[in-house]
Amino acid sequence: MTDKDLQFMKRAIELANEGMKSNAGGPFGAVVVKDGEIIAEGYNSVTSVNDPTAHAEVVAIRKACEKLETFQLKDCVIYTSCEPCPMCLGAIYWARPEKVFYACNREDAAAIDFDDQFIYNEIEKNIEDRQIKFVQLMQKEALTVFDNWKNKEDKTEY
Amino acid sequence: MTDKDLQFMKRAIELANEGMKSNAGGPFGAVVVKDGEIIAEGYNSVTSVNDPTAHAEVVAIRKACEKLETFQLKDCVIYTSCEPCPMCLGAIYWARPEKVFYACNREDAAAIDFDDQFIYNEIEKNIEDRQIKFVQLMQKEALTVFDNWKNKEDKTEY
Repeated sequence: MTDKDLQFMKRAIELANEGMKSNAGGPFGAVVVKDGEIIAEGYNSVTSVNDPTAHAEVVAIRKACEKLETFQLKDCVIYTSCEPCPMCLGAIYWARPEKVFYACNREDAAAIDFDDQFIYNEIEKNIEDRQIKFVQLMQKEALTVFDNWKNKEDKTEY
Repeated sequence: MTDKDLQFMKRAIELANEGMKSNAGGPFGAVVVKDGEIIAEGYNSVTSVNDPTAHAEVVAIRKACEKLETFQLKDCVIYTSCEPCPMCLGAIYWARPEKVFYACNREDAAAIDFDDQFIYNEIEKNIEDRQIKFVQLMQKEALTVFDNWKNKEDKTEY
């Protein structure tokens, strides 16, 4: 851990406070760093922009990708004021940064009524046992699209 | 399962095909239905808009919330051409629709090289054992923001 790491996390925490104070959303902030510089910042904006996916990490990842004109965050580091929820964790894996620093953890989040653990538990359940009902239909029809993809020559993989 | 369910899933599958053919992204489509009507549609647009979070479900959820001017999809049903990845599953739990219909499953996705299972496995690991390195720092400093949230009187919970 370096002074720079502390400085970037300090900024993520500041963003968490800023977003909360301005009623953007919950108390969470994040920055994306590349080559020792912050290239994107975000704070939770769920309730102000009516977007349940606008968590700090997702906002920062989207902005960083827009700036770098890429859909992957190779050689980037994410600093987030709280351990990512399952959605943000998924977003992080799709964006593929090098490393993630986090400050608070999921237990701290639960203590202020952000129950990420509930979603972690749901994800681990068999699909038919989840609280939101999941029903499969038309698998065969949908598989024809996957076949088309397999045979597609001009595809961009990710 | 009703004729309407089949019709909505057919549309999700059509969107998957459209998105793929127009090189928007991977072969995945989704719709959000409320009161028996499609209120939002989406297809995967990751590689065309440089947004690793632009999966079909996330795109459709964002559009539906924008349209309904809310950050929750109460009384809505999501139809997606493939079982949601962990990121989309997280987004679904935050949006809280009533039900989800899916067509292909994660094994079908893996067969065309979309390895959602890898991310499911990573999520279940202890944070220190993941392939992307997660490091905790400045928890104490970040907790002060959570305290501010706890004491905030004009907060919008979600």
